[in-house]
Amino acid sequence: MAHISVPEGLPGILGPMAIGPDSAKALLDLAEVLLRGPNTLTPAERETIAAYVSSENECRFCQMSHSAAAAEHLGGDYELIDQVKRNYAEAAIPEKLKALLAIAGKVRQSGKLVTAEDVERARALGATDKEIHDAVLIAAAFCMFNRYVDGLATWQPADPLAYREMGYKMAHVGYGRDGNH
Amino acid sequence: MAHISVPEGLPGILGPMAIGPDSAKALLDLAEVLLRGPNTLTPAERETIAAYVSSENECRFCQMSHSAAAAEHLGGDYELIDQVKRNYAEAAIPEKLKALLAIAGKVRQSGKLVTAEDVERARALGATDKEIHDAVLIAAAFCMFNRYVDGLATWQPADPLAYREMGYKMAHVGYGRDGNH
Repeated sequence: MAHISVPEGLPGILGPMAIGPDSAKALLDLAEVLLRGPNTLTPAERETIAAYVSSENECRFCQMSHSAAAAEHLGGDYELIDQVKRNYAEAAIPEKLKALLAIAGKVRQSGKLVTAEDVERARALGATDKEIHDAVLIAAAFCMFNRYVDGLATWQPADPLAYREMGYKMAHVGYGRDGNH
Repeated sequence: MAHISVPEGLPGILGPMAIGPDSAKALLDLAEVLLRGPNTLTPAERETIAAYVSSENECRFCQMSHSAAAAEHLGGDYELIDQVKRNYAEAAIPEKLKALLAIAGKVRQSGKLVTAEDVERARALGATDKEIHDAVLIAAAFCMFNRYVDGLATWQPADPLAYREMGYKMAHVGYGRDGNH
């Protein structure tokens, strides 16, 4: 049961969002611009960073739903996202994305851990300053979303299929466009 | 020097925000609704939670600027905010706010640390479900803002007076209303 009274049947972040509709609007706008807005990083790459950070933060709802969104952007390649979460260094993803995941993994723990060398490495592998900026902000934003979901002990579906349906909507409809998170 | 190239002379979060104006808009909207929007928690109480979380996260820019905003809402009572950051349990603030700070302090580390007892205690001291929701979300949001500022190693003014000026504008003008953060 959630720590506070939320409308029944709303999974994960949607429960608390119903309690704070004004903040929900800003949160959804942020998710939309970070994960689906115009960007030289693909939506799949950005959702992969979100899923990875949420997985490391052990936020089941966010990692399941954003893994599904990432996979849906990849035409249903759930195995690749699982590889990233298990060990991204050996996953079949571009080296640039690995360097951005390394930065994201540090931001997750503390922004202060990111070094000039981490940033230089990402740059040498082709990352632009804006892409580095976005990787840092996506990782930081999921440190917020994960805490919002878990800090209120929200209800979370057990059925993996529910997350696939959410991921499909997140990837192909968008955030805040259809009542979904 | 910041990890990425940002316009010179912009303090703290304003540098990266200039790199990502679309995400900056959502971030400023979120700060405005969480810290200055209509709420039964006063702006001073909400800025105090922001300052406390930023202080525990050792994000100098955020803790200095939001401490100043909190103090400006209190007519310049910087000493009270210093007390909260040193040891809120003994500060001259309402017991309800102490219970919300306890929840915020746990959210800062991990949302999973918040217990039903923490929430029950806040409720017994008069906190509403919406106030508990807001304390959790403010704490979570500053886990994002702190990481955004520190993860990019932004430039930060050394002069304490610069933070007082920022705090004055944050408290009395607002977020995103005057180019300030």
